[in-house]
Amino acid sequence: MANIGDNIPQAFPSRQNGVLRGVKVAILVVGSVALDSVETPFGKVEDALGGSATYFGVSASSFTPVKLVAAVGTDFPAKHVDLLKKHKIDTTGLEKMEGKTFRWAGVYETNMNNRRTLSTCLNVFEKFSPKIPESYQDIPYLFLANIDPDLQYDVLDKVSRRKRPKLIALDTMNLWIDIKKESLIKVLKKADILLINESEARQFAQEHNLVKAANIILAHGPKAVVIKQGEYGALYFSKTTVFSAPAYLLESVCDPTGAGDSFAGGFFGYLAKKGKLDDKTVRQAMIYGTVMGSFCCQGFSLDKLCKISQKDIQKRYKEIKELTVF
Amino acid sequence: MANIGDNIPQAFPSRQNGVLRGVKVAILVVGSVALDSVETPFGKVEDALGGSATYFGVSASSFTPVKLVAAVGTDFPAKHVDLLKKHKIDTTGLEKMEGKTFRWAGVYETNMNNRRTLSTCLNVFEKFSPKIPESYQDIPYLFLANIDPDLQYDVLDKVSRRKRPKLIALDTMNLWIDIKKESLIKVLKKADILLINESEARQFAQEHNLVKAANIILAHGPKAVVIKQGEYGALYFSKTTVFSAPAYLLESVCDPTGAGDSFAGGFFGYLAKKGKLDDKTVRQAMIYGTVMGSFCCQGFSLDKLCKISQKDIQKRYKEIKELTVF
Repeated sequence: MANIGDNIPQAFPSRQNGVLRGVKVAILVVGSVALDSVETPFGKVEDALGGSATYFGVSASSFTPVKLVAAVGTDFPAKHVDLLKKHKIDTTGLEKMEGKTFRWAGVYETNMNNRRTLSTCLNVFEKFSPKIPESYQDIPYLFLANIDPDLQYDVLDKVSRRKRPKLIALDTMNLWIDIKKESLIKVLKKADILLINESEARQFAQEHNLVKAANIILAHGPKAVVIKQGEYGALYFSKTTVFSAPAYLLESVCDPTGAGDSFAGGFFGYLAKKGKLDDKTVRQAMIYGTVMGSFCCQGFSLDKLCKISQKDIQKRYKEIKELTVF
Repeated sequence: MANIGDNIPQAFPSRQNGVLRGVKVAILVVGSVALDSVETPFGKVEDALGGSATYFGVSASSFTPVKLVAAVGTDFPAKHVDLLKKHKIDTTGLEKMEGKTFRWAGVYETNMNNRRTLSTCLNVFEKFSPKIPESYQDIPYLFLANIDPDLQYDVLDKVSRRKRPKLIALDTMNLWIDIKKESLIKVLKKADILLINESEARQFAQEHNLVKAANIILAHGPKAVVIKQGEYGALYFSKTTVFSAPAYLLESVCDPTGAGDSFAGGFFGYLAKKGKLDDKTVRQAMIYGTVMGSFCCQGFSLDKLCKISQKDIQKRYKEIKELTVF
């Protein structure tokens, strides 16, 4: 894999400060793999590859190898598995269950901010109980993509039994704040970083002001919270650092589905690659998140994300620097 | 006036590249001076000092002297005139007309984004025809705060007759885009910079995408457009530069009234002080705009803006750098 980041001297797999150890530097992601039907002002797709773990995995795979745990139905096209494998995503943990793959259908209005869900069919996800393959043991980076917080906790607990991962992050959504807030709080207590949308951060904290909301979230245990603001960028809050990442300004947003998961992939993938959580690395990771989220918006499904090169990523990183430097 | 900006070597009034010439470096602002009654979750004020020219003037006065053209009624309290004078704002052009001062009343909801206007009484503003005092001739910086674009054009025309100002900027609002778009376009053709809210930029350009909307606005003549995004920061677009200024993260927003005008005052005041419009200066000016807009939000009326020192401004500028640097 080619070198990225203007201050990352080695090619991947790298050894930095003795922290990263070759192929062991991988991310385990648990989440959904889905078939999405999406309509935007720019067109529509039916049963296209989607899901939080898919977007996260493909995005993060530009930075570090990814091992996937998810479930699909017997109807899941083999070409989608091939696509994941092509991105060096380990699919040993992709369980094929009897029944249909999780499906989501939605429509975006002209302004791309209002998303209307047409249907959500959990299908095999209704009975999904994540199993961690033996070959996935001792993975230092764990990302719990947006699924039921009880499943997130179960994975966190299983994975940590032998040795707690170096870094654990999670995403969530309004539904779980509505119906399973206590379960979510239980996961938060054991995790390092929460990634959450602006409106969800406010909902969780019962507080409109984002600085206060972030502090309320941090009081539940995580070391940091990333508040994703869609077309307005993203904010990082920890006890010592506050960082504001701008949005990359796109002249055309084709389909924002998966942008948040792609952001998470860039952010967490870069942290795993660097093997550090210092102030400088976190700021750079936020920008790589922004880069990957913006690429995601430029095509339906994973179309654009699958086409970009390390050079494209690096070019956009520099453009964002140019956009904000003063 | 004390030195501000970490790379502005001289104290004000300064001489840089032979461009700025002592006290002649002043801004002429034409706009409204009003009495506002505002209610927010943090409290309420009645008949407090407000108006676009007032917020702009007090904010810009931290950077360069300001000369005001506006109208008030016979009921306008002398203490408010004293406050303007205290900020070295030349009030020769503040016309006292028969009748009552322009009044606005509004309420902000909990989230501070939804502002509900309770009443707008134009009063003396109905018959206001801006007169430029003889002593205001040859002022190099002209700011047309939010008033009827026909009045803005009239001022621009009068002021430019002898010698066109070095830099002309304007603000506007949704009302004028609704009912006087052609007049606004006429002003735009002769101005250098338009400052406009995000929703108004979309409304003016009939285009949701902000990059495209900015380009549509630039095609009408101005060299640059600043799109104000409230709690999300501000964007600067010219043919050669795109810059994204973050929002300064406040833990408590008391009253956002006048924040956009205060942003404009910091932005334009700094440009006038520096006497340049190069890329570096513009980026710094956007941040000084952000600084002044954020201070404005921390108090009702001009309460907080009137209390800040050059040291406070400089401190916040550095905090914003820390917030965005990577």
